Amino acid sequence: MLHWLQQYRRAMLPGDISAGIVVAMMMIPQGMAYALVAGLPPVVGIYASIVPPVLYALFGTSSTQSVGPMAIISLMTASTLAPLAAPGSALYGVLAAQLALLSGAVLLACGLLRIGFLANFFSRPVMSGFTIGSALLIAWGQLRPLLGSSEPGWPDAPHGPSAALGLGALLALLWARRYLAGTLRRLGLAPVAADIGAKLAPMLVVLGGVALVAGLGLEARGVATTGAVPAGLPGLNLATSSSHWQALLQPALLIGFMVFLISMSGAQALALKRAEKLSSNRELVALGAANLGSALSGGFPVTGSMSRSAVNFAAGANSQLASIVTAALLGLALVVPSGWLALMPLPVLAATIIIAVLGMLDLSTLHTAWRYDRADAAALLATAAGVLVLGVEAGVVVGLALSMGALIWRASRPHIAVLGRIPGSEHFRNVERYTTETAPGLLMLRIDAGLFFGNVEAVNARIEDELAAQPETRHLVLVLSAVNAIDTSALFGLGELNASLRQRGVLLHLAEVKGPVMDRLRDSTLLAALNGRVFLSAAMAWDQLAREAR
Amino acid sequence: MLHWLQQYRRAMLPGDISAGIVVAMMMIPQGMAYALVAGLPPVVGIYASIVPPVLYALFGTSSTQSVGPMAIISLMTASTLAPLAAPGSALYGVLAAQLALLSGAVLLACGLLRIGFLANFFSRPVMSGFTIGSALLIAWGQLRPLLGSSEPGWPDAPHGPSAALGLGALLALLWARRYLAGTLRRLGLAPVAADIGAKLAPMLVVLGGVALVAGLGLEARGVATTGAVPAGLPGLNLATSSSHWQALLQPALLIGFMVFLISMSGAQALALKRAEKLSSNRELVALGAANLGSALSGGFPVTGSMSRSAVNFAAGANSQLASIVTAALLGLALVVPSGWLALMPLPVLAATIIIAVLGMLDLSTLHTAWRYDRADAAALLATAAGVLVLGVEAGVVVGLALSMGALIWRASRPHIAVLGRIPGSEHFRNVERYTTETAPGLLMLRIDAGLFFGNVEAVNARIEDELAAQPETRHLVLVLSAVNAIDTSALFGLGELNASLRQRGVLLHLAEVKGPVMDRLRDSTLLAALNGRVFLSAAMAWDQLAREAR
Repeated sequence: MLHWLQQYRRAMLPGDISAGIVVAMMMIPQGMAYALVAGLPPVVGIYASIVPPVLYALFGTSSTQSVGPMAIISLMTASTLAPLAAPGSALYGVLAAQLALLSGAVLLACGLLRIGFLANFFSRPVMSGFTIGSALLIAWGQLRPLLGSSEPGWPDAPHGPSAALGLGALLALLWARRYLAGTLRRLGLAPVAADIGAKLAPMLVVLGGVALVAGLGLEARGVATTGAVPAGLPGLNLATSSSHWQALLQPALLIGFMVFLISMSGAQALALKRAEKLSSNRELVALGAANLGSALSGGFPVTGSMSRSAVNFAAGANSQLASIVTAALLGLALVVPSGWLALMPLPVLAATIIIAVLGMLDLSTLHTAWRYDRADAAALLATAAGVLVLGVEAGVVVGLALSMGALIWRASRPHIAVLGRIPGSEHFRNVERYTTETAPGLLMLRIDAGLFFGNVEAVNARIEDELAAQPETRHLVLVLSAVNAIDTSALFGLGELNASLRQRGVLLHLAEVKGPVMDRLRDSTLLAALNGRVFLSAAMAWDQLAREAR
Repeated sequence: MLHWLQQYRRAMLPGDISAGIVVAMMMIPQGMAYALVAGLPPVVGIYASIVPPVLYALFGTSSTQSVGPMAIISLMTASTLAPLAAPGSALYGVLAAQLALLSGAVLLACGLLRIGFLANFFSRPVMSGFTIGSALLIAWGQLRPLLGSSEPGWPDAPHGPSAALGLGALLALLWARRYLAGTLRRLGLAPVAADIGAKLAPMLVVLGGVALVAGLGLEARGVATTGAVPAGLPGLNLATSSSHWQALLQPALLIGFMVFLISMSGAQALALKRAEKLSSNRELVALGAANLGSALSGGFPVTGSMSRSAVNFAAGANSQLASIVTAALLGLALVVPSGWLALMPLPVLAATIIIAVLGMLDLSTLHTAWRYDRADAAALLATAAGVLVLGVEAGVVVGLALSMGALIWRASRPHIAVLGRIPGSEHFRNVERYTTETAPGLLMLRIDAGLFFGNVEAVNARIEDELAAQPETRHLVLVLSAVNAIDTSALFGLGELNASLRQRGVLLHLAEVKGPVMDRLRDSTLLAALNGRVFLSAAMAWDQLAREAR
């Protein structure tokens, strides 16, 4: 804890302060916008950007991670709460805080149980598919506020001034995304400064929107704005008498899981750039604390945001002090006269959301997967389709099922080679790839995978096939040089194979059993019941058995 | 389809007929009892034992599998339907058939999609834990009918005559389980015949119960019986206007999954004894057809029963004709005057259920796992606890999570060896296990696992650790002799490692890339971007780099 503070050097301060300021200017419109995505009043997005990053700074292991509201987690929050309360109602806000509390508790518990390996549950393509599906769902949901339409569903009745403001902001942001960095560079800014400046486009566009609303009196003409922001920090908003705790538990599990996955994937990418070491268990604790903090300060579920963290990194953040600076600035924004915050036009915020999630539509993973492994590409598309058709929570389950399915499917087709001897040598190789000699009655198989429940049946089936192809076999040697582990299921599988072979007069031998595997097997009943012998090497098995088999 | 019929020889007939008769005598009390477990009238258990085994015989690949009602699937049926309808009501029966229909459709679809590798999703310890938890739950549920108590929950008000009958049957069955086979053997029966005879104890005890009920007029004294059995076969019981289809969908997925897992684990054990080859995809189709058939003939979800199949096997079944004989006899039992079926005392049926599920309390897997791998033993106990505390459906999910969790956990700790050269040779070995020489500035790592999303972070972390331990490293060689596959996630991981190492002035080389892995990599961007070179062997990498690194 606070490892970074003990090692803090004064030279790190300028970078941290400037990054903190930049991220704060990015955070204000983003936090408010993502609160809207979650179905909450915009100011809640500011609340959720103050305490959580400070708690993350205390416990986290990434120096540049920016924790706060994030689009996908906001979408999951909205999808959880929509059936339980009306967006904007007091109950809705209480439930959002309760959801953050439960998600935080789940994360904290996982961290204390040290099960950070959970971060490895999603494959990259599945994560990419989940992100793409969620981004499309979020963008679709923002069409209505963008055009000022009050109809649910397809916005067939846009509100003129709102739509003009929203579409104008959208075009400005699209322009900024493509050309602003180049323009700033031509104006003499250093490349890094120009890139960072371009990231502040949403803040500039929102401020432009505020100016238009104030100048043209657009509020009176029906353009929706964020509305009065209560000054000061929020009170505790966490009634415990609600009967919704049970309904929130399963979503909290899924949200906690995705908070962790999303935060880790961003943090890992940045950590690699600085050769920084993350601890997944401490990340769980830090994200848990951040969500508990969000719950206790009137917020909603939060996570590390890849896009904000990248800006934090690029803007020179050297430590978590940058996030603390950001939090302090946001706190200040609530305390100083904040009338201008009330005038933010919702169509402009919707435009910033759409542009932000368009940035998440990264198709390069799909492109790579399509060329490299069609099954991975199919998993990506299926996960995206799952999110779009079944919703974001079912999408997590679909993604999990596909990741695990791919894993088991691959595991269920282990590579097994029939071995023969390279004539005149002590080397044994795959008979299909090398010119080898074999001995009649002796079958040698090398299994190129750890043996576990996912492949034990496939291994047994393959052995039966090989025995059927060589019915004269009297000795079967399993060469385990590539087997790093044998789990309990595979132990039973080998025991049953041994019993079955015994009945049929075939002896089962093992060869080249690795040290750690042998240590385990020694205590098991398999070795005692083994029909045949254990050989140190394939060559020793050949020397003994080729003669006997004849 | 009907492969076995084409190869049928007359010599197989006696075995099939005798096994068919034996299983029918086992099936009558068992089918009725398991219908009670499912909350259905006992006769439904007979219905579900006629059409399903015939359909399985048409499509299945196991010669001895006995398909019909099964305790755990009945428990899952009851747990699904209890919140939707009152047990015994007409709606309850309709929903049971609908559940079988949906489960059958799920199985059939999985079979047609050829995703039979689903059978590999549960580890043995998890399956054992699930079975133990379910058995205890079923036994607990039968205490009330055993003692004739009408109170829900703990049976604190037993009904004298019922309890006497139930406990008497229980003691008789316990005695038969332990001593009947031996007694029959001493009476001159051959060992196999004696073992089979002992399996008919439930039928004998039930017949004894019927005699007592009839002789002593126990019905009038308040002993519950199966009640009037409508003669003849049932009509279609599958109203389609119900609004419960959606509520049944998720349970049907879980039930279909468990139907498949339970049936496969039994069939595989018997197939191994006969060196018979099962096709998991055709098993899915056959179990799907069996459940559709059950739905259309007034039944409920069915599966292959390990205990009945073992009796079928032991009684000499040579083909699926045995199951057809069983089905024909059960059909006959419904058509001939079946008044005696009505007099079966429920306390005695409860006793047969308790004894049957006690047979499922196999602690040997726990014992083996405890000695061999504590993590597997913990997964077993946690799954059993999950079933007992959260219910049988949540138990499936807990089991899945634990199986997958164990898999990812193991995968996330791949074995990686630092290699050194055996002096004067071309052999490279783990520096911790052999006396080797290393070259300054050259780090060679052998990764002993396929690279995929579950271990890509762990591999990168380990590489960072080794680089931190040897900061003078200029050349990093990954020896991929044991890497059988690299998935898209790992491809990205290697690409990011490559970029990160480039920044730090370390060259990344690959060596001993396997043929199929290289075929894939050749088309990818990794090789084009690779910092260093690809060497055919570790020795060639050493020869080139040991000099350069100096």
